[in-house]
Amino acid sequence: MNRRAVLAEALGSLLLFTTVIGSGIMAERLAGGNVAIALLGNTLATGAILFVLITMLGPVSGAHMNPAVTLVMRLRGHIRTGAALAYGAAQMVGGVIGVWLAHVMFDMPLLQLSTKLRDGPGQWAGEAVATFGLVLTILGTARTRPDSAPTSVALYIVAAYWFTSSTSFANPAITVARSLSDSFAGIAPSCVPAFVAAQIIGAIAAHFAAGIIFRSPIEDRA
Amino acid sequence: MNRRAVLAEALGSLLLFTTVIGSGIMAERLAGGNVAIALLGNTLATGAILFVLITMLGPVSGAHMNPAVTLVMRLRGHIRTGAALAYGAAQMVGGVIGVWLAHVMFDMPLLQLSTKLRDGPGQWAGEAVATFGLVLTILGTARTRPDSAPTSVALYIVAAYWFTSSTSFANPAITVARSLSDSFAGIAPSCVPAFVAAQIIGAIAAHFAAGIIFRSPIEDRA
Amino acid sequence: MNRRAVLAEALGSLLLFTTVIGSGIMAERLAGGNVAIALLGNTLATGAILFVLITMLGPVSGAHMNPAVTLVMRLRGHIRTGAALAYGAAQMVGGVIGVWLAHVMFDMPLLQLSTKLRDGPGQWAGEAVATFGLVLTILGTARTRPDSAPTSVALYIVAAYWFTSSTSFANPAITVARSLSDSFAGIAPSCVPAFVAAQIIGAIAAHFAAGIIFRSPIEDRA
Amino acid sequence: MNRRAVLAEALGSLLLFTTVIGSGIMAERLAGGNVAIALLGNTLATGAILFVLITMLGPVSGAHMNPAVTLVMRLRGHIRTGAALAYGAAQMVGGVIGVWLAHVMFDMPLLQLSTKLRDGPGQWAGEAVATFGLVLTILGTARTRPDSAPTSVALYIVAAYWFTSSTSFANPAITVARSLSDSFAGIAPSCVPAFVAAQIIGAIAAHFAAGIIFRSPIEDRA
Repeated sequence: MNRRAVLAEALGSLLLFTTVIGSGIMAERLAGGNVAIALLGNTLATGAILFVLITMLGPVSGAHMNPAVTLVMRLRGHIRTGAALAYGAAQMVGGVIGVWLAHVMFDMPLLQLSTKLRDGPGQWAGEAVATFGLVLTILGTARTRPDSAPTSVALYIVAAYWFTSSTSFANPAITVARSLSDSFAGIAPSCVPAFVAAQIIGAIAAHFAAGIIFRSPIEDRA
Repeated sequence: MNRRAVLAEALGSLLLFTTVIGSGIMAERLAGGNVAIALLGNTLATGAILFVLITMLGPVSGAHMNPAVTLVMRLRGHIRTGAALAYGAAQMVGGVIGVWLAHVMFDMPLLQLSTKLRDGPGQWAGEAVATFGLVLTILGTARTRPDSAPTSVALYIVAAYWFTSSTSFANPAITVARSLSDSFAGIAPSCVPAFVAAQIIGAIAAHFAAGIIFRSPIEDRA
Repeated sequence: MNRRAVLAEALGSLLLFTTVIGSGIMAERLAGGNVAIALLGNTLATGAILFVLITMLGPVSGAHMNPAVTLVMRLRGHIRTGAALAYGAAQMVGGVIGVWLAHVMFDMPLLQLSTKLRDGPGQWAGEAVATFGLVLTILGTARTRPDSAPTSVALYIVAAYWFTSSTSFANPAITVARSLSDSFAGIAPSCVPAFVAAQIIGAIAAHFAAGIIFRSPIEDRA
Repeated sequence: MNRRAVLAEALGSLLLFTTVIGSGIMAERLAGGNVAIALLGNTLATGAILFVLITMLGPVSGAHMNPAVTLVMRLRGHIRTGAALAYGAAQMVGGVIGVWLAHVMFDMPLLQLSTKLRDGPGQWAGEAVATFGLVLTILGTARTRPDSAPTSVALYIVAAYWFTSSTSFANPAITVARSLSDSFAGIAPSCVPAFVAAQIIGAIAAHFAAGIIFRSPIEDRA
């Protein structure tokens, strides 16, 4: 197994999750109660760091930073089971450290649990749609314009923060990690399982949709 | 006919229209009555998803997602009549499903009609100008810098959301679809025909203007 | 003389100036008195359309849309005197039509004069700095990374709208044209001459600075 | 020593620092007390000018504009000691002139000292993390996708303005320079030493982390 790749997944997830949590705290503190302004700051920061991390770490590990993406890559045979499990562990461990790092930076207690309820069929549909679109973007641009993948993934999340009712978690690891922060980007632990289930459904649906819409390499050769 | 292309038009329109409607709902709910802040969120989301969809689906179908664009491509002989009609139907059906998907995500009634009046000579001029600029951007970058087309189209719409009095619908299918949502991005059904007429006038004007300003491939060869 | 190039300058200036004026009107109307929010909308629209116009029209005419840029290109021998004069006229005529088009779109009287005073040594310094940076960006990226010119010029203006006290007109034609609109982006006619003088000083200073910092093509060949 | 490179560092730092200070003043004046809106304007301007300066000056001097970056480049043997010292002096002198230029543009007294306290372990952690990420981005993209370096560095700072508690100074020269402005972006002189120490720790940590995560050129050749 490629140790540098696993390390890259851990470090990437750490920096991504600390950005999501940290920018949420900063934005909420400064926005004077206007949630749209807070979400603008949160969106800018998340989209920007996604571009940076995928650009920088993509050639090292693929820059999944998301177990739903790793699962689909396993389904498509792009990664072995052992590596996929190591990726998932690295994403989860790195990500939780990232959340705690945000708490350190903002002088907040390290260990927290979110009390923010996020549930109901609308938000579950939002998570399924959000993850469907994310995985479709990853698989689609890999087939049509791979150089644009970092920009595309970053901008997809920028859009999805606004067009889904759940503000687009679209990532099982970040969903668990965000339950450990009682701040702007948090989610109550009791709401996590349904979100993760919706994300996995969306990811697998995108796996099949991409097979229909994007020509396979074999067709290209024919 | 290329079935994957028609499917791509339907899926692209679905995701584009759900973004326009969904981000409008999200932005208005969070903006605390400040419409400029709401429009910032709506603009970011729309521009971002346009880049993603044109990057990902452009090589599959051209990523029109807009009957006015398909019409101009037919006028220029880049697509046959049968395919153009299939594209238009896919855009309309996919787009309406996208609007309803936004309603599902935000726990709103599926079937709605907008009550937002958008009319008068100023807004009609706005739609003609908006569509003129959009089609000119598509035809112009195709001639001068095709790699920049996704960014150019996305940024053109970002600008046009702000510089036209109508906030730039610039798309007959999205105009009809937006009449089916009584939310931020909606338009009353009675206002639709004049918007669509202005859009078609703008699109055809751009078709001729592009012929004057951008050298034709034949001239290039000479 | 290249008629298509002159036409491109006129059309580009028309679309650029209508965006500056139109997005200013839209932003001010929606921002509920918060000028920073209005300037965010005005900035986004201006930066976005600059990228589009320079990408699309750059290969046709150079996409100056600015007499200060045309002047520097004449000083450097990249354009003949007759063409430079035709460019300047096209920029001015196209630009004023663009201002009037914005008034039509927003249902305002066609003929206006701005009453917004913009003067004093701070703002004059702002205009000189703004134009210095703009011309340096154009000349510098042309030498070091020409493919990044449209993005660089667009982002330079995004920055300069915020870091200069005058919000960076940086363009004699747009300064005159903005005096014809009593709206967010306007400038009282009495303030125009000092702004234009500061812009020309900044542009010529950048012409010399670029000669020092960026290696000339002759040096490259040596 | 390359005089043009040293001059480029001075001019780049001047324009970067005048943007950080100037856009902070502009944003605070217009934002009506909403600090998140002010930070949005400050972020946009800083990210935009960083892209422009790194694109334009990168091929001339490397566009460090930051003694922590120059230090790491010295540690990695990419620059000699004499040139590194000249770079540092140029960054400091150019940067202070940039701060004063902002004061001139905004009709403020030239000589000021900030009274804004920024301290405590949270903000020191913020500076270490901010500089770690910045240097990792520079070293990482140089190894994996050098063409994306200007965009990556600019977007990294956009994110870090929001996800670190200190709003990411991440630059010893700008920290000193910002102590000379009693405005939005200022920092009290007494808080400077701890910020600079945290920045150097973060930079050196990134130097080692990059050696682990990114394959060295020697490995590539093997």
